[in-house]
Amino acid sequence: MKLWQKGYKLNREVEKFTVGNDYILDQRLVKYDCIISIAHVTALCDAGLITEEEKKSLIKTLDEIIKLADKGKFMIKPEEEDCHTAIDNFVIEKLGVAGEAIRIGRSRNERIIGSLRLYYVEKLGEIIHNINQLVESLKDFARKYRRVIIPGYTHMRKAMPLSISLWAKSYVESMKDNIKLLEFLSNFLNTSPLGTGAGFGIPIKLDRKLIAQHVGFRSIQKNPLYVQCSRGKFEALLLDGLTQVMMDLNRLSSDIILFSMSEFGFFKIPKELCTGSSLMPHKLNPDALEIVRSKYHAVLAASVQVKSTVSNLIAGYHRDFQVMKEAAITSIDTTIDCLKIMVLFVENLDIDRKKCEKSLTEDLFSVDKLHELVVKEKMSFKDAYRLMAEKHLKKIL
Amino acid sequence: MKLWQKGYKLNREVEKFTVGNDYILDQRLVKYDCIISIAHVTALCDAGLITEEEKKSLIKTLDEIIKLADKGKFMIKPEEEDCHTAIDNFVIEKLGVAGEAIRIGRSRNERIIGSLRLYYVEKLGEIIHNINQLVESLKDFARKYRRVIIPGYTHMRKAMPLSISLWAKSYVESMKDNIKLLEFLSNFLNTSPLGTGAGFGIPIKLDRKLIAQHVGFRSIQKNPLYVQCSRGKFEALLLDGLTQVMMDLNRLSSDIILFSMSEFGFFKIPKELCTGSSLMPHKLNPDALEIVRSKYHAVLAASVQVKSTVSNLIAGYHRDFQVMKEAAITSIDTTIDCLKIMVLFVENLDIDRKKCEKSLTEDLFSVDKLHELVVKEKMSFKDAYRLMAEKHLKKIL
Amino acid sequence: MKLWQKGYKLNREVEKFTVGNDYILDQRLVKYDCIISIAHVTALCDAGLITEEEKKSLIKTLDEIIKLADKGKFMIKPEEEDCHTAIDNFVIEKLGVAGEAIRIGRSRNERIIGSLRLYYVEKLGEIIHNINQLVESLKDFARKYRRVIIPGYTHMRKAMPLSISLWAKSYVESMKDNIKLLEFLSNFLNTSPLGTGAGFGIPIKLDRKLIAQHVGFRSIQKNPLYVQCSRGKFEALLLDGLTQVMMDLNRLSSDIILFSMSEFGFFKIPKELCTGSSLMPHKLNPDALEIVRSKYHAVLAASVQVKSTVSNLIAGYHRDFQVMKEAAITSIDTTIDCLKIMVLFVENLDIDRKKCEKSLTEDLFSVDKLHELVVKEKMSFKDAYRLMAEKHLKKIL
Amino acid sequence: MKLWQKGYKLNREVEKFTVGNDYILDQRLVKYDCIISIAHVTALCDAGLITEEEKKSLIKTLDEIIKLADKGKFMIKPEEEDCHTAIDNFVIEKLGVAGEAIRIGRSRNERIIGSLRLYYVEKLGEIIHNINQLVESLKDFARKYRRVIIPGYTHMRKAMPLSISLWAKSYVESMKDNIKLLEFLSNFLNTSPLGTGAGFGIPIKLDRKLIAQHVGFRSIQKNPLYVQCSRGKFEALLLDGLTQVMMDLNRLSSDIILFSMSEFGFFKIPKELCTGSSLMPHKLNPDALEIVRSKYHAVLAASVQVKSTVSNLIAGYHRDFQVMKEAAITSIDTTIDCLKIMVLFVENLDIDRKKCEKSLTEDLFSVDKLHELVVKEKMSFKDAYRLMAEKHLKKIL
Repeated sequence: MKLWQKGYKLNREVEKFTVGNDYILDQRLVKYDCIISIAHVTALCDAGLITEEEKKSLIKTLDEIIKLADKGKFMIKPEEEDCHTAIDNFVIEKLGVAGEAIRIGRSRNERIIGSLRLYYVEKLGEIIHNINQLVESLKDFARKYRRVIIPGYTHMRKAMPLSISLWAKSYVESMKDNIKLLEFLSNFLNTSPLGTGAGFGIPIKLDRKLIAQHVGFRSIQKNPLYVQCSRGKFEALLLDGLTQVMMDLNRLSSDIILFSMSEFGFFKIPKELCTGSSLMPHKLNPDALEIVRSKYHAVLAASVQVKSTVSNLIAGYHRDFQVMKEAAITSIDTTIDCLKIMVLFVENLDIDRKKCEKSLTEDLFSVDKLHELVVKEKMSFKDAYRLMAEKHLKKIL
Repeated sequence: MKLWQKGYKLNREVEKFTVGNDYILDQRLVKYDCIISIAHVTALCDAGLITEEEKKSLIKTLDEIIKLADKGKFMIKPEEEDCHTAIDNFVIEKLGVAGEAIRIGRSRNERIIGSLRLYYVEKLGEIIHNINQLVESLKDFARKYRRVIIPGYTHMRKAMPLSISLWAKSYVESMKDNIKLLEFLSNFLNTSPLGTGAGFGIPIKLDRKLIAQHVGFRSIQKNPLYVQCSRGKFEALLLDGLTQVMMDLNRLSSDIILFSMSEFGFFKIPKELCTGSSLMPHKLNPDALEIVRSKYHAVLAASVQVKSTVSNLIAGYHRDFQVMKEAAITSIDTTIDCLKIMVLFVENLDIDRKKCEKSLTEDLFSVDKLHELVVKEKMSFKDAYRLMAEKHLKKIL
Repeated sequence: MKLWQKGYKLNREVEKFTVGNDYILDQRLVKYDCIISIAHVTALCDAGLITEEEKKSLIKTLDEIIKLADKGKFMIKPEEEDCHTAIDNFVIEKLGVAGEAIRIGRSRNERIIGSLRLYYVEKLGEIIHNINQLVESLKDFARKYRRVIIPGYTHMRKAMPLSISLWAKSYVESMKDNIKLLEFLSNFLNTSPLGTGAGFGIPIKLDRKLIAQHVGFRSIQKNPLYVQCSRGKFEALLLDGLTQVMMDLNRLSSDIILFSMSEFGFFKIPKELCTGSSLMPHKLNPDALEIVRSKYHAVLAASVQVKSTVSNLIAGYHRDFQVMKEAAITSIDTTIDCLKIMVLFVENLDIDRKKCEKSLTEDLFSVDKLHELVVKEKMSFKDAYRLMAEKHLKKIL
Repeated sequence: MKLWQKGYKLNREVEKFTVGNDYILDQRLVKYDCIISIAHVTALCDAGLITEEEKKSLIKTLDEIIKLADKGKFMIKPEEEDCHTAIDNFVIEKLGVAGEAIRIGRSRNERIIGSLRLYYVEKLGEIIHNINQLVESLKDFARKYRRVIIPGYTHMRKAMPLSISLWAKSYVESMKDNIKLLEFLSNFLNTSPLGTGAGFGIPIKLDRKLIAQHVGFRSIQKNPLYVQCSRGKFEALLLDGLTQVMMDLNRLSSDIILFSMSEFGFFKIPKELCTGSSLMPHKLNPDALEIVRSKYHAVLAASVQVKSTVSNLIAGYHRDFQVMKEAAITSIDTTIDCLKIMVLFVENLDIDRKKCEKSLTEDLFSVDKLHELVVKEKMSFKDAYRLMAEKHLKKIL
């Protein structure tokens, strides 16, 4: 039975179309909705709307669902649409009329928003953890090869010498900035929508602050309509944060792919991390890095989807918002997977010291020489620059 | 066994990461790869590289796979990566060394491209079919309510009278233009990549034209490197085509959603096509239309993903291209689903003639009156315009 | 005076904001609006709404404007908003009340759409011309260096030998496909919106076919509402076409930038096409190619803007559509500029034959040897592949 | 003269193409580059590389430039490419060889980055100021009409009663969240790139912390390569912040446009803020709001451009980054313009109390009645919901 069932039969095509794969995606949210529901029935009891007895049996049943979900044994049927309906059905089947209390004084919508936020916050924590692991592996790499110098490039042209340490630490600093950003975003999203109904408040008085505390939210979002309007707004921010992480992984992949080409040869990727070609027996391809590089674009696209979806619509809930759930969830999974793969690559990346050394051609040191002329020989900057430039041009042309 | 297996074990994390859900998506492509492979072994036989006998048993086995696939019984294991490997493994297991001929003189890459193009072309046909059904239902609607007039809007303000017929037929003409576009694109994509290897030709001589004919391609793509470089390029075009269709469905949904609001009341959506609210017992929501509206953004995002993914890369195959497969396949499914749902809505949409009539306020006829003054009364355009404008302003302010 | 002036003063901030830079962009459209207006007054005369005399003086004045515009001397004042108002003001100032006929029986909206389409079609012709020039320069390049072989790459790894001819011709074939696409789109867009008013027809009878013929449109768009709804729809298609061209230029730039790195050295860019660094005297940077590469993303973004802007809106004109004008115009300019620069680069690109030769390492020929083993030595494909693979792995690891 | 001039002439087409409109955009940056240069020459003096005398005359000249720029009298010639070159040329022309010191020990690149960051931070402050003004006008609006109730909508269907106060305050809370975000971003971007050269450090020792303090940066970015890699990364964040603001303005526009339709009539926009139609004398169109709505998509597109541009590239500077400057600058201008227009609209927006009252139909109160049945009459939730739902369905169908 659906939460809104009211005596007529929904067209089956429409039903299938509207449910989509929500019932699969929602497996991730069961736990969070139960946590929220426990806080809700506690508040109902505090407000004298259900008895202490009823509260206890409701909480017991919800705990039971959490345990089932942990074991992957809580099933959501397609016709139930989502985890919230499945949870209510389970509770009502178990407790009868007493179970129906779970629906008093709230809307499915606030439960979805609340569950998603708890999920986002938990996942952002997991992502930060994975970024920290990448930071550690990058630091190890920097330490291990700190004396190795390769050319630094601008405009894809040899520019000045670049130590492996400087290279690896540029990602360390960038990733630390990402953590700063994600922590800010995690706090930003960690605000309670509970007790706001469908965007216009609820007809009974519940203590919103207490509910939020019970669930573990850091603050409450005051305005019920803003709660609805932050659908998409918050997801956009979440995805912007992931995009920053993926942008760095995209560049890191690009670096490793280029610098492990035989034409450069600075890096060596162990064969166990490479795949081959069905046609060319000699190939060792960095597929996983290419996929990481590519997944940046998938996350970027997800953020475009979200930001475009919510546009040109008036305040208040629209069903369009539900479609964005998949974009957010998939992007979170992608970011975690890519971070883990990247740790594996950085930990196992090797360096060919000879090739690095050989690549250090004279032109890389032109800035040093220029400044020697200026500082020590007191030549004017322009004259020194011209002298060096002409010398170099003569050599290569 | 993978097509490129060469005596070392791929790291399991990397394996899982690179395979992704290709093995599931590829179920759609089994049939097409078999068709391509049948043409290939025929060409190998023509070139004297395998015997007539060998050809026959290869074709027989491939036919068997097609039949299995039709029944949903051809399985692709995750460790096989994709349908091409699974097909080869099946053939080789069945025919032993003779089966290996299936891999001579081609790359997996050209098979993927060929299979995808056959799939795209078939699906574009299916989409055109569905568009035609929508066109029919729109025409029926136009006919049924041809005498009904509603306000036409510009800037979301009442502008001039709009007949339901004109309204519905605007979508008919637009959808017919979409068909024109999709037919062009279908021809554009319907070109054979077969016989080009990994982008640099193959070391044996096969008749590319004959292979293409055998498979059913309309033309051949000559340059092997261009074949590779059209990954993403062709998908972008395909998605641009779908975006056009979805853009119209997005607007059609927006129209129906607005015009069925109680404030307008021109359209009535039967309750069987509406869903309800868990909190508000009176609600009848047009969820399916909202999802159609929203799915436009998913398809748009898919096209951004593809176009961003292929950028800043050199000519030739990159593994990044494989990741776009899902974006294309999902968008095709989405477009078909949305077209079908829209047919259902247009077929069942009702009109409230009274509310339409009531909405026809005087201001809607200002242009008629203005031109009467100009044409019949010989008033100057400016004077007539001013007269009408002031009259109207006085009324509303 | 504005076309819609009606006895109150528009707030000055709002005026400035709504005009934006339309009055500058519209310089490009003056000619086309005059052509359209000439056809319109001819139709008004045919319909007996103005005299032959009036028609002649109107046409004479419009011709005068065209000549002024050709010399860059037709000015559009910011307070006139756009070229259509400026043209009407000029005509009315010149001809008095007789001039006002120019406004009878049409809306500014259809004039904007008509002018833009004429502009798009002309510019698409110019783009095709520039593509053809690039095709010629690529063919010359292919001819000049047809015997030179470089490595072909897949996964950014040496794959198989690639002749310069094959490389250059991959762009030739792709660019020819682009022309095919642009010609289709040019025809698609070349359809007359004239005579449809603001989307709901006009109150006087004008011969739409004749007007279209007079202007030079290939067909007429029948449904007036569809005319309005093709705002954005048509621009999206136009930009999709440009994106295809720019995608190829992005890849071509990427190829030249990489292959002219000292680590590869296949290509040499003459110093006159390179810029330098303020700090590093030795640098010769391919700035122009990097900008071409980058401009792909600007055109892609323009298409996202257009496709996102028109979403979630009902049928009929919205002012939002005007904002897209700049995205379309800028992208056209960009594409033409980039094509011209690319012709310059291809014409002046040099090849270092020695470096090309030196790059042809043994591994590039593994497919040839594999097929020799299979075809001549009758080894099974799997065994031959394994043999080659192991030989190669031993060498590099 | 260009900063990198070295004895050959740059092709004129390439010169024009690479300069683009940088010389115009850079007018905004003159002041900031001077501030940075003053700090730089101070550091050069501290390091004993120039005399106190030289420092003073350099600073005097840079102050002179700031004053000229303030009056709009500092000109950048196209052939100078950008403000940095123009500033150096001015200084060197004035001071001769002594002026050349301005170029010692740094790259143009770090100056561009530094100038842009100062510009971003200042503009973010301006944006926050404008948001605060909007917040004030929204609060006034909420206060003024706090007793007025309109329908709240979900799924574009009447849902529950919504007070004007709640409506306006939803934007207040959202805008305050935006300020929180922008303040975070402003701090994030407010970090010094100075003293890092072209991404690989500089050959002389300057006190980076002191330079940063002198300029007014809050922190320093340690890793020189990360400085380069934050091009695009930082702009993406900036644009994400602006996107959040514009997303709210997009929705606010959508609300006002819909609720001021004659079908709703809750809001009244004064005619001075409306434009008209060239064809329909009765029209009063909310053009400015439509443009605000539309500009959201322009800012969103700018962020896509930036995020796509930097992808698939290796670490280090690429000329592609310069092209993003326009996207950032334009989006900042747009956001400020739209905020100001929105303040004007909110300040002048009127309410039609009668139409609001009339819109409050019985269905809006179904949740209240449902909870009365549950709480007071002790009916089970399901039964109460069913009762209400059926009652309502009967009424409307």
